[in-house]
Amino acid sequence: MKVGIIMGSTSDLPVMQEAIDFLKEMDIDIEVDIVSAHRTPDKLFDYSKNAHTRGINVIIAGAGGAAHLPGMVASLSPLPVIGVPVKSRNSIDGWDSVLSILQMPGGVPVATVALDGAKNAGILAAQILGARDTELQDKMLAYKEGLKQKVIEGAKSIK
Amino acid sequence: MKVGIIMGSTSDLPVMQEAIDFLKEMDIDIEVDIVSAHRTPDKLFDYSKNAHTRGINVIIAGAGGAAHLPGMVASLSPLPVIGVPVKSRNSIDGWDSVLSILQMPGGVPVATVALDGAKNAGILAAQILGARDTELQDKMLAYKEGLKQKVIEGAKSIK
Amino acid sequence: MKVGIIMGSTSDLPVMQEAIDFLKEMDIDIEVDIVSAHRTPDKLFDYSKNAHTRGINVIIAGAGGAAHLPGMVASLSPLPVIGVPVKSRNSIDGWDSVLSILQMPGGVPVATVALDGAKNAGILAAQILGARDTELQDKMLAYKEGLKQKVIEGAKSIK
Amino acid sequence: MKVGIIMGSTSDLPVMQEAIDFLKEMDIDIEVDIVSAHRTPDKLFDYSKNAHTRGINVIIAGAGGAAHLPGMVASLSPLPVIGVPVKSRNSIDGWDSVLSILQMPGGVPVATVALDGAKNAGILAAQILGARDTELQDKMLAYKEGLKQKVIEGAKSIK
Amino acid sequence: MKVGIIMGSTSDLPVMQEAIDFLKEMDIDIEVDIVSAHRTPDKLFDYSKNAHTRGINVIIAGAGGAAHLPGMVASLSPLPVIGVPVKSRNSIDGWDSVLSILQMPGGVPVATVALDGAKNAGILAAQILGARDTELQDKMLAYKEGLKQKVIEGAKSIK
Amino acid sequence: MKVGIIMGSTSDLPVMQEAIDFLKEMDIDIEVDIVSAHRTPDKLFDYSKNAHTRGINVIIAGAGGAAHLPGMVASLSPLPVIGVPVKSRNSIDGWDSVLSILQMPGGVPVATVALDGAKNAGILAAQILGARDTELQDKMLAYKEGLKQKVIEGAKSIK
Amino acid sequence: MKVGIIMGSTSDLPVMQEAIDFLKEMDIDIEVDIVSAHRTPDKLFDYSKNAHTRGINVIIAGAGGAAHLPGMVASLSPLPVIGVPVKSRNSIDGWDSVLSILQMPGGVPVATVALDGAKNAGILAAQILGARDTELQDKMLAYKEGLKQKVIEGAKSIK
Amino acid sequence: MKVGIIMGSTSDLPVMQEAIDFLKEMDIDIEVDIVSAHRTPDKLFDYSKNAHTRGINVIIAGAGGAAHLPGMVASLSPLPVIGVPVKSRNSIDGWDSVLSILQMPGGVPVATVALDGAKNAGILAAQILGARDTELQDKMLAYKEGLKQKVIEGAKSIK
Repeated sequence: MKVGIIMGSTSDLPVMQEAIDFLKEMDIDIEVDIVSAHRTPDKLFDYSKNAHTRGINVIIAGAGGAAHLPGMVASLSPLPVIGVPVKSRNSIDGWDSVLSILQMPGGVPVATVALDGAKNAGILAAQILGARDTELQDKMLAYKEGLKQKVIEGAKSIK
Repeated sequence: MKVGIIMGSTSDLPVMQEAIDFLKEMDIDIEVDIVSAHRTPDKLFDYSKNAHTRGINVIIAGAGGAAHLPGMVASLSPLPVIGVPVKSRNSIDGWDSVLSILQMPGGVPVATVALDGAKNAGILAAQILGARDTELQDKMLAYKEGLKQKVIEGAKSIK
Repeated sequence: MKVGIIMGSTSDLPVMQEAIDFLKEMDIDIEVDIVSAHRTPDKLFDYSKNAHTRGINVIIAGAGGAAHLPGMVASLSPLPVIGVPVKSRNSIDGWDSVLSILQMPGGVPVATVALDGAKNAGILAAQILGARDTELQDKMLAYKEGLKQKVIEGAKSIK
Repeated sequence: MKVGIIMGSTSDLPVMQEAIDFLKEMDIDIEVDIVSAHRTPDKLFDYSKNAHTRGINVIIAGAGGAAHLPGMVASLSPLPVIGVPVKSRNSIDGWDSVLSILQMPGGVPVATVALDGAKNAGILAAQILGARDTELQDKMLAYKEGLKQKVIEGAKSIK
Repeated sequence: MKVGIIMGSTSDLPVMQEAIDFLKEMDIDIEVDIVSAHRTPDKLFDYSKNAHTRGINVIIAGAGGAAHLPGMVASLSPLPVIGVPVKSRNSIDGWDSVLSILQMPGGVPVATVALDGAKNAGILAAQILGARDTELQDKMLAYKEGLKQKVIEGAKSIK
Repeated sequence: MKVGIIMGSTSDLPVMQEAIDFLKEMDIDIEVDIVSAHRTPDKLFDYSKNAHTRGINVIIAGAGGAAHLPGMVASLSPLPVIGVPVKSRNSIDGWDSVLSILQMPGGVPVATVALDGAKNAGILAAQILGARDTELQDKMLAYKEGLKQKVIEGAKSIK
Repeated sequence: MKVGIIMGSTSDLPVMQEAIDFLKEMDIDIEVDIVSAHRTPDKLFDYSKNAHTRGINVIIAGAGGAAHLPGMVASLSPLPVIGVPVKSRNSIDGWDSVLSILQMPGGVPVATVALDGAKNAGILAAQILGARDTELQDKMLAYKEGLKQKVIEGAKSIK
Repeated sequence: MKVGIIMGSTSDLPVMQEAIDFLKEMDIDIEVDIVSAHRTPDKLFDYSKNAHTRGINVIIAGAGGAAHLPGMVASLSPLPVIGVPVKSRNSIDGWDSVLSILQMPGGVPVATVALDGAKNAGILAAQILGARDTELQDKMLAYKEGLKQKVIEGAKSIK
């Protein structure tokens, strides 16, 4: 059971780190790599065609600007692909990454999360792994309980 | 192994039908219902809290305008939730549904697909069920092969 | 006569403080709490269903990103709900909070104010309480007179 | 107890009719008029300054394009003003009416509802009148119950 | 021959100063004032109705957010009104001021310039005064010649 | 006293006709021509450099898409130039014409009116001609009185 | 000397036909094919890697939605790639295709033309072929002369 | 073989420098100049009409705001024109420069690159010069190889 986390450039790492951290915290195996759709297209092909045969179950792909990485991986892999729109330098307020990941044509979905929403990508990957695994579902319920407790403490603090 | 498909209103059915059709075609069990976040909030709670205990593995939720259904289900269920932004009457070009489903806060992801992209929601649900199931992965690869053949025939037709 | 002020997270407090301050200045009773639609959905339900039986007359709800709090409260309470779109971290320029609060479907209105417009939410709450109360209306007229005087002094200062 | 409903032009009437219909259905007194901020500014002044002295408790104002009517009424009246952005001919997809009603400066709120959301304006007016009136609150709860029943019937119909 | 320059708040002065400076440089008489559509509506009425009888020939009005000042002045005065959309605090990237000034309904034009484009408002005012005055037209041609010379010097500097 | 009305293509004529009609109604001399910034740049230059020497006092220029006509005329003529953004075929909802006319750099203003707002361009031209002409100002006041009467009749009709 | 014209789907052909027609009219060799980035990724790779060795000099690629075709071709080919954003069904007003083609990261340009601007893609291809070929440049000048004549005739027709 | 690089103002130089640097690195001749569409229209005409007779093969034009420079050059020159939208001061998030360069009407293309994408403009110019020159194509392939190596090293660094 493993999640592949890839991103278009090392400059995306600070954003993508939140997905890495969450999955580590959940004791879920990960494999992190840089794969650029536009600068290493051959690597993109190899990665996407073989990920499922190498024991990867879900792919998280982060990219900015005209972000083609998540969609291209999705076109080549049978695995669910989670796309993280990254607000890169020179981005037009993030709209470019959001729309070029979200608006995939019929036949090739990308599970898109919020702009710079790598943490949610990690959580979604865990939920996907847990779709048919009640043990993991219980872990997710426990995680949600933790979120709730933090809000309740916050509520106390302002009173 | 079952996919729960819900939508905010019967008027969303023509869009959501594509998800239903795809999953039927794939012989994956589905359960379709109308659950409105704003008009049947109690049903929303019951549905979301119990779906995973009733044998549902993935939830597809479609809604338009200020679309709160997918996010609210995601806040209550440990299952992966796929959100379909529907371009409803009076929508501001679909931006309202897209942003109110996509931009979920850290902790509660919704796997968002394209505007009116219910077919992709169905495909994504199948991929999620297949994340740890190589048989389903092979089915997805066969589906992709079918997409490819249609394009190749289209290419012939224009020559 | 009391105004309930809730927000999705303690990080919304600096924005929401302006509503608190205005209502205190007007000697109107308030009750402030943190209620997260996505992290404390049960509290959201309790709060919304019971606010009107606990003596609250108007609810102000502030939230950012895919902001579901104001709309969900409005779906559960018979009281008028004022929504404050908060420009949160990772927001797409505030459009996400604005549209997910404003574009409510027919049947469940949220009285939306400007982005980060918590002060106006406070004023609107006072006006709502004063809709059938001429004494409060006179107070609002006096407040408007104060705004006018400040502009007139500003005009003098630049001459 | 009366709601004043005004609009910038007779061409706004088909949209605004939904507010009129809802309030009639609720047996709430209304007064309908055409008041154009740009073509009848004197009438705008008279209307806004005197509405509260003539027994009006809430004002609903609908307008399209650079929609100044709701904000100008709000600047002159102590009453709560509900703004309905109308998608007029030549509008830029409704963004102009939405932003020129919603983004009021600090001090002068307009309770904005969705684009062409006149029905919600009517409901909000009823909720405002009921803010301190438990009888009206019960009526609103009954109305919500009606919405719920329709969704439940819709859910049955698709099964 | 005089240009009236008004703005909604003293906080608009840093932007509007460029119009003041240009007209002073051109030796054109100006009168500067603060007039708030929402906080001093009576002053707005007096100003707009009487400006042309007090010797003012063109009005420049700057405002931010839901910017109603230029349009309301235009509804009350027979003079040409130039609108300057100001990017105020809490503005949604300036779109609110731009659209609420530009998208005036048929019958009541506002001559809109670029976001924070007060200098161009000053130049346009001079061009309007010179529409039937060849002497002023020659002055404008001389000003354009000056712009050209600066570009030519800039071109030299980079070689 | 004459207004020059130009547009980029004969396909803009249905929109621009409203400016022509208004000015004819006001008995103001006009001269109508097709001048394309991109297809007849030499004519653009001749027209713009000589309009003021041929007795033209104000120029109205309408264009769609990447609309360069109004701005280029403004760069070459000392006259006030009114720009009409036309929503052409293939336009991105009119945003392209609006922004490429409105957002002129410092030094070269274009008096921009609403999308497809040719009528307002005609009215603005009349107001500009009347900036220093009280007779024309009286005509504009009479025109405004006519607008008001139509609204008042509309108000009667709905009662 | 040959231009390769590809598009993601046969449904793009009506838009792309204008590029085909223009280049035929100019007697420039073309080769038309359907290549889908998402449904035929292997064909995309073959096409892009070999186009320049097969005698193609410029590539025109049209696609809609999350349009990855032009950018992916550009990542694999040394040839200049012209991207045509196509406004497909379910597109969000064309913004998705525009941004996912235009906003390419540093290193991999796509020469983007207007939404549905296939004719301009054809013209640009001819200009690129003529960049170092004065005969082709003369042909382009003759073409421009033709555009001019049409405008001049249009101008006559409205007088 | 020479590339002409022009920009509307010296303030565009920091952005445009990336095009200059790339072409120098590739040993391609360049000529840099300031040409303002709005402040030096005569220079714009001379430059555009004569560039191809002076040995220039491709033109790169950068401009911000209502950016008319690239389109006007394209209307006057038979050469391919690359447009660089520059995010200038007072720009509305860059949308103005992007749309006023990209959305050219049929007949007059501008090869538009990403916002502030001057580096890509340089690369595209090299690709255009190499469209019929296999030696330059090999250089571009080598450049792409370099991009790939950097990504591969980046991938190593994060492991």
